[in-house]
Amino acid sequence: MNDFNPNLMMDFYEFTMAYTYFKEGKHLQYAYFDMFIRSVPNQGGYVVFNGLHRFIEFVQGFKINEQQIAYLRKVGNFSEDFLEYLCNLKLELDVWAVPEGTIVFPNEPFITVRGNWISAQIVETVLLLCVNYASLVTTKASRVVFAAKDKGVLEFGARRAQGFDAAIQGARGAVIAGCIGTSNTLAGAIYDLTVSGTMAHSFIQLYPDEYSAFLAYAKVQPSNCIFLIDTYDSLNSGIVNAVRVAKEFLIPNGYTLKGVRLDSGDLAYLAKKIRVILNDNGLIDTKIVVSNSLDEYLIEGLLNQNAPIDIFGVGENLITSASAPVLGGVYKVVASEVDGVIEPKIKLSDNNQKITNPGYKKVYRFYDLDNGKALADVVALANEVIDPISYELFDPNSPWKKKTISNYQVLELQQMIFSKGNLVYQVPTTSQVIAYHRLQLNSFWEEVLRLRNPHKYYVDLSLDLYNLKQILMEKYHQIVGE
Amino acid sequence: MNDFNPNLMMDFYEFTMAYTYFKEGKHLQYAYFDMFIRSVPNQGGYVVFNGLHRFIEFVQGFKINEQQIAYLRKVGNFSEDFLEYLCNLKLELDVWAVPEGTIVFPNEPFITVRGNWISAQIVETVLLLCVNYASLVTTKASRVVFAAKDKGVLEFGARRAQGFDAAIQGARGAVIAGCIGTSNTLAGAIYDLTVSGTMAHSFIQLYPDEYSAFLAYAKVQPSNCIFLIDTYDSLNSGIVNAVRVAKEFLIPNGYTLKGVRLDSGDLAYLAKKIRVILNDNGLIDTKIVVSNSLDEYLIEGLLNQNAPIDIFGVGENLITSASAPVLGGVYKVVASEVDGVIEPKIKLSDNNQKITNPGYKKVYRFYDLDNGKALADVVALANEVIDPISYELFDPNSPWKKKTISNYQVLELQQMIFSKGNLVYQVPTTSQVIAYHRLQLNSFWEEVLRLRNPHKYYVDLSLDLYNLKQILMEKYHQIVGE
Repeated sequence: MNDFNPNLMMDFYEFTMAYTYFKEGKHLQYAYFDMFIRSVPNQGGYVVFNGLHRFIEFVQGFKINEQQIAYLRKVGNFSEDFLEYLCNLKLELDVWAVPEGTIVFPNEPFITVRGNWISAQIVETVLLLCVNYASLVTTKASRVVFAAKDKGVLEFGARRAQGFDAAIQGARGAVIAGCIGTSNTLAGAIYDLTVSGTMAHSFIQLYPDEYSAFLAYAKVQPSNCIFLIDTYDSLNSGIVNAVRVAKEFLIPNGYTLKGVRLDSGDLAYLAKKIRVILNDNGLIDTKIVVSNSLDEYLIEGLLNQNAPIDIFGVGENLITSASAPVLGGVYKVVASEVDGVIEPKIKLSDNNQKITNPGYKKVYRFYDLDNGKALADVVALANEVIDPISYELFDPNSPWKKKTISNYQVLELQQMIFSKGNLVYQVPTTSQVIAYHRLQLNSFWEEVLRLRNPHKYYVDLSLDLYNLKQILMEKYHQIVGE
Repeated sequence: MNDFNPNLMMDFYEFTMAYTYFKEGKHLQYAYFDMFIRSVPNQGGYVVFNGLHRFIEFVQGFKINEQQIAYLRKVGNFSEDFLEYLCNLKLELDVWAVPEGTIVFPNEPFITVRGNWISAQIVETVLLLCVNYASLVTTKASRVVFAAKDKGVLEFGARRAQGFDAAIQGARGAVIAGCIGTSNTLAGAIYDLTVSGTMAHSFIQLYPDEYSAFLAYAKVQPSNCIFLIDTYDSLNSGIVNAVRVAKEFLIPNGYTLKGVRLDSGDLAYLAKKIRVILNDNGLIDTKIVVSNSLDEYLIEGLLNQNAPIDIFGVGENLITSASAPVLGGVYKVVASEVDGVIEPKIKLSDNNQKITNPGYKKVYRFYDLDNGKALADVVALANEVIDPISYELFDPNSPWKKKTISNYQVLELQQMIFSKGNLVYQVPTTSQVIAYHRLQLNSFWEEVLRLRNPHKYYVDLSLDLYNLKQILMEKYHQIVGE
């Protein structure tokens, strides 16, 4: 379990393709790949990009060792010179990516990779694996935090996460999206996240009665008392014993009852009853924490009922993004490069949405100088210069719909991460990612961020890119038609 | 990434509870916990238990190191003697569990843990994490394999898995459930699984045309040719070029076209057309492989349409169990032990399904001697002796429904895994788990295993356990009512 070596985290076809390239000498040629999404989960308006730091770690640590070469020798029909090539392979890639915490949209490349045909291809599986889940869970957490408005959200999902890695990256993603903490101690230790927790039902059950359990806890940890009150009966037993321990022990000793937690029953009804009981006993600062299979919709419902809840603990539905557990990010070849000349590539499909945007490209975001809000993103060919004064946007699906904008600031979204395999990017700390993500959120109108029927944010193509795409579509249709 | 140390994979409340026990001297007392599920995902009939080997590795490797103690010192309000206790802590647990690959049902304990209050409590998060996802994905894969009947299923999901760990454990679970292989090279290397794969769309796009791409691949790897035929147009281009390379190069050189793969379009229609084309060209042994967001229902539909498909590649919907991405296994205290006397514990709930079965228990499975099929499971108190000749079953929800059975063999399901922290169990290899699971499947009627409206398999309580539960429910209702 401790000897986890991720270097073979590749679909086997990465090796069979690489072997063909190697034997044909194609590994001396270069190619460009884009990663992007085609749609947003949960009919939402946006995705929060995340997972880049893991891919950076992978590229930096990449080394297929002798034991793994032996495995490839056993399962594949590979020649010794190819295995030797793999054993010595370093990932001398150029990588551009948007920073973690960036708000992204369908059909814009948030990562672009340039490398020789082998290196650029074989990182496909691991790049998608790192980014798809991390972005998915951060996006889901962002929705939950949005629904909770000014109330706190705690991430509680480790026990139902899809593995250790999901538990850790899920907790990190949740905190980046705005959760105030996580129950996951390991994630807290690795990423310096706020951790929290007090007691389970089993704690109360192991004592002769609920009162003894609360009192025992209060005596040992008087400054961290959030009592779980639904083990036997929240209204007739739990809250009664919690108030009793507060009055008999905590308050006389200069402490306060920090909170009570409900994990079952009708949370809106119980929270209202309990708020009254707490207030009647002078415990006006005691928080009400609730949990039990919550998600953004249930939280929205509880707040619409004016349930006096201060903190939501959210577990399985956040950590697995249960309502939409897959982010379908893809990694597509967009160009090859022979003797320094870039040849754009396109993938056709009967489904127009699946036709790729060809060429080596950059993504620009236009901000309205009057209010700082994002106006639109534009995907352009890398060699284009974007006019800083005036720009004509048009909808690539309805190219006659045009709009000229001005009074904007335009920023390139991708930054260079690796240059020929050397890290040229200062990887931000988790707290820097949190702060950056907050700025990103503030740069979008709430209409783009809302849970239901969000306003569709524009991701347009530059005229040059649009024209290139039309030409290539025409060309390939002719080839197939011949 | 390579320094993954799982020892703090615990919800923080495990530590705050442990701290209270420690300060109160309760860590010298013992407790029993059960892990079980309350329901089956996807309205299915059964769950395939999996993930035990990871928990075994965790217990064996458990050691909170100095760096982790420093983290706990920083984030928790713990005393130095407690931190020292944690630093020296070994998990001297008794653990009983059913073997990986066992078919299990709701409300029967498939794992029982006995240890001091601290040790038995703090493994909660990691045990649930190891078992919940592994069992979930194995169960989902079992459904997919069931739907595919005698056709092969390949696991393709790494890029959409919820993290590295899910990609690896998901691939292993899929093969245990009957998949014929996985695309995941790392999982293959770790668990000795069959890996497979040939080419992506990018491979074909990087060559000047589809024919050149297929031919290049065929020349390098003539014995492993499964061509992806939908990059441009499956019927007008892909299959034409595949047949051409087979006839011009593979067959003249003594090879065969192993298969063609479709990854888009109407798979039933295309498979039928392509089967005819292959057969007309004498390629009757060439397999048709299909992929594209498949699951058990789509596979069932394709086979109902008599689509001549030989192999299904299944990705995101299997590896995330997308239709039901959470297995809600729980870990509940069932008894405490003071001076060798076991005191059963119960957790009440307004929801009858959530009331726990108290006491230290064992699970028995009764097999019909006439046909070897499982008749029913019975959960009994550990000190009960099960009559080998005749046994009266009754439905705990309708205790007047009784049935006396005979002519059976009865087997205890759980085996001892750890005794006082020492591994006393021979951990099976993956191929042993695969073989065991196949026997398990064969011991159930297909009616229990089918995808829709499965026959409900009986999990009954022994009379002694039933009576104990009634007494404890009565007693706690009185306490709360006072």
